[in-house]
Amino acid sequence: MVGKNLKSILESVKLGKIEIDEAIEMIIDPGYDDLDFARVDLDRTKRRGFPEVIFCEGKTDDQVLEIFKKLSDKNSNVLGTRANKTTFKKISTLFPQATYNALGRTITLERESPQNTGNILIVSAGTSDLPVVEESYESARIMGNSVSKLLDVGVAGIHRILYNVDLLDKAKVIIVIAGMDGALPSVIAGLVKKPVIAVPTSVGYGANFKGLAPLLTMLNNCSGGVGVVNIDNGFGAAYLASMINKIGEE
Amino acid sequence: MVGKNLKSILESVKLGKIEIDEAIEMIIDPGYDDLDFARVDLDRTKRRGFPEVIFCEGKTDDQVLEIFKKLSDKNSNVLGTRANKTTFKKISTLFPQATYNALGRTITLERESPQNTGNILIVSAGTSDLPVVEESYESARIMGNSVSKLLDVGVAGIHRILYNVDLLDKAKVIIVIAGMDGALPSVIAGLVKKPVIAVPTSVGYGANFKGLAPLLTMLNNCSGGVGVVNIDNGFGAAYLASMINKIGEE
Amino acid sequence: MVGKNLKSILESVKLGKIEIDEAIEMIIDPGYDDLDFARVDLDRTKRRGFPEVIFCEGKTDDQVLEIFKKLSDKNSNVLGTRANKTTFKKISTLFPQATYNALGRTITLERESPQNTGNILIVSAGTSDLPVVEESYESARIMGNSVSKLLDVGVAGIHRILYNVDLLDKAKVIIVIAGMDGALPSVIAGLVKKPVIAVPTSVGYGANFKGLAPLLTMLNNCSGGVGVVNIDNGFGAAYLASMINKIGEE
Amino acid sequence: MVGKNLKSILESVKLGKIEIDEAIEMIIDPGYDDLDFARVDLDRTKRRGFPEVIFCEGKTDDQVLEIFKKLSDKNSNVLGTRANKTTFKKISTLFPQATYNALGRTITLERESPQNTGNILIVSAGTSDLPVVEESYESARIMGNSVSKLLDVGVAGIHRILYNVDLLDKAKVIIVIAGMDGALPSVIAGLVKKPVIAVPTSVGYGANFKGLAPLLTMLNNCSGGVGVVNIDNGFGAAYLASMINKIGEE
Amino acid sequence: MVGKNLKSILESVKLGKIEIDEAIEMIIDPGYDDLDFARVDLDRTKRRGFPEVIFCEGKTDDQVLEIFKKLSDKNSNVLGTRANKTTFKKISTLFPQATYNALGRTITLERESPQNTGNILIVSAGTSDLPVVEESYESARIMGNSVSKLLDVGVAGIHRILYNVDLLDKAKVIIVIAGMDGALPSVIAGLVKKPVIAVPTSVGYGANFKGLAPLLTMLNNCSGGVGVVNIDNGFGAAYLASMINKIGEE
Amino acid sequence: MVGKNLKSILESVKLGKIEIDEAIEMIIDPGYDDLDFARVDLDRTKRRGFPEVIFCEGKTDDQVLEIFKKLSDKNSNVLGTRANKTTFKKISTLFPQATYNALGRTITLERESPQNTGNILIVSAGTSDLPVVEESYESARIMGNSVSKLLDVGVAGIHRILYNVDLLDKAKVIIVIAGMDGALPSVIAGLVKKPVIAVPTSVGYGANFKGLAPLLTMLNNCSGGVGVVNIDNGFGAAYLASMINKIGEE
Amino acid sequence: MVGKNLKSILESVKLGKIEIDEAIEMIIDPGYDDLDFARVDLDRTKRRGFPEVIFCEGKTDDQVLEIFKKLSDKNSNVLGTRANKTTFKKISTLFPQATYNALGRTITLERESPQNTGNILIVSAGTSDLPVVEESYESARIMGNSVSKLLDVGVAGIHRILYNVDLLDKAKVIIVIAGMDGALPSVIAGLVKKPVIAVPTSVGYGANFKGLAPLLTMLNNCSGGVGVVNIDNGFGAAYLASMINKIGEE
Amino acid sequence: MVGKNLKSILESVKLGKIEIDEAIEMIIDPGYDDLDFARVDLDRTKRRGFPEVIFCEGKTDDQVLEIFKKLSDKNSNVLGTRANKTTFKKISTLFPQATYNALGRTITLERESPQNTGNILIVSAGTSDLPVVEESYESARIMGNSVSKLLDVGVAGIHRILYNVDLLDKAKVIIVIAGMDGALPSVIAGLVKKPVIAVPTSVGYGANFKGLAPLLTMLNNCSGGVGVVNIDNGFGAAYLASMINKIGEE
Repeated sequence: MVGKNLKSILESVKLGKIEIDEAIEMIIDPGYDDLDFARVDLDRTKRRGFPEVIFCEGKTDDQVLEIFKKLSDKNSNVLGTRANKTTFKKISTLFPQATYNALGRTITLERESPQNTGNILIVSAGTSDLPVVEESYESARIMGNSVSKLLDVGVAGIHRILYNVDLLDKAKVIIVIAGMDGALPSVIAGLVKKPVIAVPTSVGYGANFKGLAPLLTMLNNCSGGVGVVNIDNGFGAAYLASMINKIGEE
Repeated sequence: MVGKNLKSILESVKLGKIEIDEAIEMIIDPGYDDLDFARVDLDRTKRRGFPEVIFCEGKTDDQVLEIFKKLSDKNSNVLGTRANKTTFKKISTLFPQATYNALGRTITLERESPQNTGNILIVSAGTSDLPVVEESYESARIMGNSVSKLLDVGVAGIHRILYNVDLLDKAKVIIVIAGMDGALPSVIAGLVKKPVIAVPTSVGYGANFKGLAPLLTMLNNCSGGVGVVNIDNGFGAAYLASMINKIGEE
Repeated sequence: MVGKNLKSILESVKLGKIEIDEAIEMIIDPGYDDLDFARVDLDRTKRRGFPEVIFCEGKTDDQVLEIFKKLSDKNSNVLGTRANKTTFKKISTLFPQATYNALGRTITLERESPQNTGNILIVSAGTSDLPVVEESYESARIMGNSVSKLLDVGVAGIHRILYNVDLLDKAKVIIVIAGMDGALPSVIAGLVKKPVIAVPTSVGYGANFKGLAPLLTMLNNCSGGVGVVNIDNGFGAAYLASMINKIGEE
Repeated sequence: MVGKNLKSILESVKLGKIEIDEAIEMIIDPGYDDLDFARVDLDRTKRRGFPEVIFCEGKTDDQVLEIFKKLSDKNSNVLGTRANKTTFKKISTLFPQATYNALGRTITLERESPQNTGNILIVSAGTSDLPVVEESYESARIMGNSVSKLLDVGVAGIHRILYNVDLLDKAKVIIVIAGMDGALPSVIAGLVKKPVIAVPTSVGYGANFKGLAPLLTMLNNCSGGVGVVNIDNGFGAAYLASMINKIGEE
Repeated sequence: MVGKNLKSILESVKLGKIEIDEAIEMIIDPGYDDLDFARVDLDRTKRRGFPEVIFCEGKTDDQVLEIFKKLSDKNSNVLGTRANKTTFKKISTLFPQATYNALGRTITLERESPQNTGNILIVSAGTSDLPVVEESYESARIMGNSVSKLLDVGVAGIHRILYNVDLLDKAKVIIVIAGMDGALPSVIAGLVKKPVIAVPTSVGYGANFKGLAPLLTMLNNCSGGVGVVNIDNGFGAAYLASMINKIGEE
Repeated sequence: MVGKNLKSILESVKLGKIEIDEAIEMIIDPGYDDLDFARVDLDRTKRRGFPEVIFCEGKTDDQVLEIFKKLSDKNSNVLGTRANKTTFKKISTLFPQATYNALGRTITLERESPQNTGNILIVSAGTSDLPVVEESYESARIMGNSVSKLLDVGVAGIHRILYNVDLLDKAKVIIVIAGMDGALPSVIAGLVKKPVIAVPTSVGYGANFKGLAPLLTMLNNCSGGVGVVNIDNGFGAAYLASMINKIGEE
Repeated sequence: MVGKNLKSILESVKLGKIEIDEAIEMIIDPGYDDLDFARVDLDRTKRRGFPEVIFCEGKTDDQVLEIFKKLSDKNSNVLGTRANKTTFKKISTLFPQATYNALGRTITLERESPQNTGNILIVSAGTSDLPVVEESYESARIMGNSVSKLLDVGVAGIHRILYNVDLLDKAKVIIVIAGMDGALPSVIAGLVKKPVIAVPTSVGYGANFKGLAPLLTMLNNCSGGVGVVNIDNGFGAAYLASMINKIGEE
Repeated sequence: MVGKNLKSILESVKLGKIEIDEAIEMIIDPGYDDLDFARVDLDRTKRRGFPEVIFCEGKTDDQVLEIFKKLSDKNSNVLGTRANKTTFKKISTLFPQATYNALGRTITLERESPQNTGNILIVSAGTSDLPVVEESYESARIMGNSVSKLLDVGVAGIHRILYNVDLLDKAKVIIVIAGMDGALPSVIAGLVKKPVIAVPTSVGYGANFKGLAPLLTMLNNCSGGVGVVNIDNGFGAAYLASMINKIGEE
């Protein structure tokens, strides 16, 4: 990428060690593969620690397949989110190793087991939040994290959380997933000194307004130490958690 | 009011015990006093258990005074809410007994001590919610309720609530006042079998959106047993609490 | 639960009457059964007066069944809300006594008739509000309340309410369900000294915005004495009404 | 204006009765006076039944004065709305006959008494709605309408309206002004066969959201026969009422 | 209804001309028929000039049929809005004279031709607004109004309106129906001295937000003389127009 | 249209060169064809540079066909947007030359190849934005513009844009289409001195709120030089781009 | 900037014509001056056609002065927007040539008269929109454009626009500024084939919601050919207009 | 706190090592000091890593002072946010060592220098975001973090960021503060593998809607790895960053 190693490249040019065209590519390496309808970001692992992930919603099955193939050429493991079963079927014909998590709607191709380290804890408020839990779980796991779950401990029965304070304490980073009032992250963040990632879900009665209510609750949490991601975005929470979880591991 | 005692009135008419004009007034008793700019509802105590309360905001000092005088003619005690200090000064010239709660912005004229019964507990999440607490406290007290307070026990330190579960258990009805994430009513309702009245406040950072965030949280509470009133409406919460608190007392 | 009876437990420990492990369980009794995907709150009747209720939306039929079985092991009566007919069919295979209210979308298992006491009145503005009425009715009834209904008395024909003021007066607590302009609770609360629980419904033309319009109307009611619950949340209204209705009955 | 009397103008042109330039002016008569910063619509009385009205907010005092002078050259009566006292003072130096309604914030120059006909009734829910009442009253009166008021009859005391059904019946068109829950127009429209114009006001507690709540209530009124105007727009209601009131009078 | 003719009723009671029970019914005549799930408002023609109209959405076919039968017993003509074809089929088995407007989704039973008077003009901005036009047209017609249409004259081609100014001038009241930017009522109101009723429709690209955009445009119209009804509420516009149109006709 | 060439028309009238009726038509030429349910704007090419375009959503297939026929009588090329496949099938029976872009949902009848000039560049952030890209592409092309595409260059991989700065520089006007955060137009506008037209799309997780998020982002772009069109409105962007692109070409 | 002239720079390096450090600066020329609290973008004229403009709101007077000095060192002309009079006074002490437009709140330092070319027409709906008009006018002028104004021609009097169609036709690009209903851009765009830039203003009654209403109107304009900028953003409109206006001039 | 060390406490009770009352306090240690109007959370350092922080907004100066004194009794360092200058003056009389950051509105009492470790980088888009930057900086520093700043590098000049990629790479966690379009976090997150905390600010033109626009942008960021905090909440970002920054340091 631009701005990195520029000096040494220029020295090589000066010394004639590399050609000018080669230098240009090194300086502004496109870092992507042009599929006409998509530019697959091949540079992403180096830059961000994990290859590009396919957000399948709004793409045709053929488009997903094309991108999947391209990514699988350069990476051992591939992740697709928000995938329908039909998309998965198309993928699995070519990639029989790929697996599908129906609840979490993820496709994972795992040809090389990641070395799972650290400790991400996924906590959820209710059973209806499970699809987001699963998207988050699959994403965090394939990115090379140790992940555990503590489910259905919403604040309507606060003792369910208190009884599990130990689990909270042991985690390095905590993902808290909740719909309805979205109050769980406030309570959990108030109990620990670990970073909390809050995920609002679109679960609830009318004034939930498709996740707006828990989203605002979480942004206004009075405990501090909470970062919020998009509604139902289990993947996004996992991505951020993974970055935090790997601090000090490298 | 219409629809009540109609039969006995008609019988009195038939028997010539009362005049027709008198009967008309009994049937559709206007029940108000016309101040030209206001119709003071004199029938309210009979109908609702407490005289009309003056919402001072948006009224001139003179208008408040006129209504105050009219109400004090027919009732021992008068309550004004959202009152400025200047309005109070005008009132206190005529009614030296009247008192002003500067934080709660209430004017109270209490010429006859109400017999305070039952047990309303007002719980608040933070110190910045105090103005709403005070409006609620003054209103509930003058309506003839025993009222106590448990302040600054927001969910960021959940032990502050747990340590006071006894107080919650002893109340007949609980008012919970909270800004920011508004998560406190969910937690409290989950701990007791008492009705909880939730009051969102406009306290907090930007995405509080002047109380919208805690309002939605409270409407979406996952515990059940919670009724929500308007943002910053300490008076409204007291009014409802008073009605509940008096059940079984009459 | 934490904070209750702690002293006597400790004394028993000191005296060697109970084991330390036993004491721990008594102090922080988890009070739930772990179904892996769900933590069924078994402590709820003691804490809140009625067992956990199953919100079926967003759960698979199998998940509902598992929770239903667990709850029916410990309680005579079980309630599920927002249930599809297919979910009910699955339940009824195992629980032939269970009944389904198609309009209200509730599943009820009633193996022990509750002793219905007090007097909850459910009032609705229009015929299109019936699904919410039925959810509310079934919930209130199985929680052990006497419940009656006064339907289709919206403010477009105010005489329909006036003609039934007696019914309002006789109730201990009133649930008012209305869509469109949501004006009914304001009018009813102005006529009685009973607590009113207002339920906005998502019925109406475009600017109803899925219940937002009546929700705001109800929160802004000018009568006082009104607590608002979530849009279309007939269950929540019943839950709160039940708590109020039982005051003075115990 | 374009499209009117075109045939007769063309015939006059053909016959040489009028000059071409004259014809052009007649066909696309600009109908305004160019003040550089404003184009005063001098054609409005002919087109709309009343001269242009000055919305003073956001204009400097000098700009208001310029427009006022221009309008007073061509019309006997002039109306300015949303005017500050300082603006009025500037106007009154030149137009000592002009009067200021401090509550309604209107400036009126009435050099020729309009012949007030018909019957517009302005109804308001509470005393805090008076500024909108006054803007509406002054506007309707100077436009040549008979106007009466029925104030402070909000639905919290429904008997205040019922006692005055006669007044409603006698009006030709009714303006209903209400803040908070904005429920009054629904009730009134349900009692009469007269057109109702509803004006939401920005009066109330937090979830009034500056008039949004009563605006939605009024748009969703279940009675029918209600047309809604902008929040706090007493002038707009008067304008529409005047048009309706004059039907059949001409 | 309450408050009307009370004096003469009481005199009759005094003179023994009528029985007390009879008098009670006259004074607080319920004016409705109780169908258990619905209270059909039989008093409405007298009070409001047209019988109750059935809003079919959210009602089962059987419920609609029951109400339809009840209304047809007391009235010659019946109107149902927002009706599905299946509902109509059920109705037409019993009422073969009933007709269905598929675009406007109205059912009309017209056993007595209304004497159509006055002049309501329905103007629409685009072809996609036709369903609302038709609902409005059918409603206005059966309520006894002369109705004409001027379609597809949106402001993108302003000459289409200018060319038809005559039609606007001839109408007694104008209904303007528009989606997208909803600018048409502003322009039309600026051209005439007739009351304009504006109906926003939910037609348009994303930021139309289901009719919110044209709704706000219409409420903020700068011309004055415009009353706004709910989104897509063709019926409501017709109802108001009918009331205005009949002024001076009685 | 009104206001153009008026003088010369009048002179012709005066000189008897044209008849009065002819003159009237010339002055207020309706410029449309009345299809009863629609007024097809036949004047549009002259006025706006391209014939009326059919927005097919919300119209029946028959209505689209009627308008299509009318437009094809007067113009070589016809464009329909937001068209379903079934609508296209109906059209293609009569117009076998017509083509359908399934992704962009456009129908184009191109009987005369436009002379494509200038240089419009369509840039998109992600693959899921393709439907909007295609609507924009088809629209711009048939309006006679040279159009090229640069796809899937969202800011998550900023190097993809930097690598293509040349392309940006060569364009005369740039359309930028993005969902999710909608950040791409800000970055691109900051790199060039060309006008940028930003199109928000409804692609993304929950808090995208159907395109509201990128819409606000684009309106708040900190770079300047950006004009925003409606959510998912690829056609609107093309229309504006075409007008800009043709500046200096005429 | 990155990506431009890279090849020739590398060749110069290879040939030893320039030093490596020099080359680095050329490749990733920071293009800004670091004021510690601000990074003044000195590269902007080259990249975007006009130097960085100072948005004064939210900056202290000292900060504005520092940035102003820095920009005036490198450019002849400097523009500041949203400036208070006190800020201007501070600036004018050092830059006596600087001028202040009180209505538009702009500071301009014009040491070299721009050669004004093309033709931008600024149209406004009402007098209250003048502050935005002036911000737009000053910005466009100093950026080197010929600018004219057509003020107060809102759609309430459509003839004011029709009478000036010639002016619209002569412009190369039109800025239309309107508050309230924001309908003016729809009408104007329908009359011309010029690109229209629409600016919503925060002028109006309550449901204007600080410019939201006209913003949505403009985004939903049914005419096409309209690009929308932020509320009250006269500067942004000028910036975009300037880019369009200069097409074909270079 | 509840749930920790329970076993060893019970064993001590059993062995008679501690008294029952002492044990109770250890088990449910209130962990706060009751100031009547506030419950100061004294347990917070142990639980969360930093003492309670005083949010001064909405508290009287006396209340802040009381809480400040209480906290300073138990902790070396104290932090107050959103403090007015007058509040600071009151504090500084008693605590002359306390310092005030006028831009960031923080009061800090630092009697013991924290050992600043790790590396938090605060990046801002524009100069107007400085108040939030300063609040964040002061908070992070006193919590014991090494903090550096990179200011005014908004995406309007993308080279300002690219030129500083090294700084981004060196940080352990990055706080990105931006108003207007809020696009900066998306771009920065796309360049690094570090967790990014995004803070929307309320800086910008009208459609910024007091920070709503950048808030939504940040929640919808397409890069991943971003956690969002409340609008203008520099403190909250610092709190979360501090927790992340200390991972692996303990």
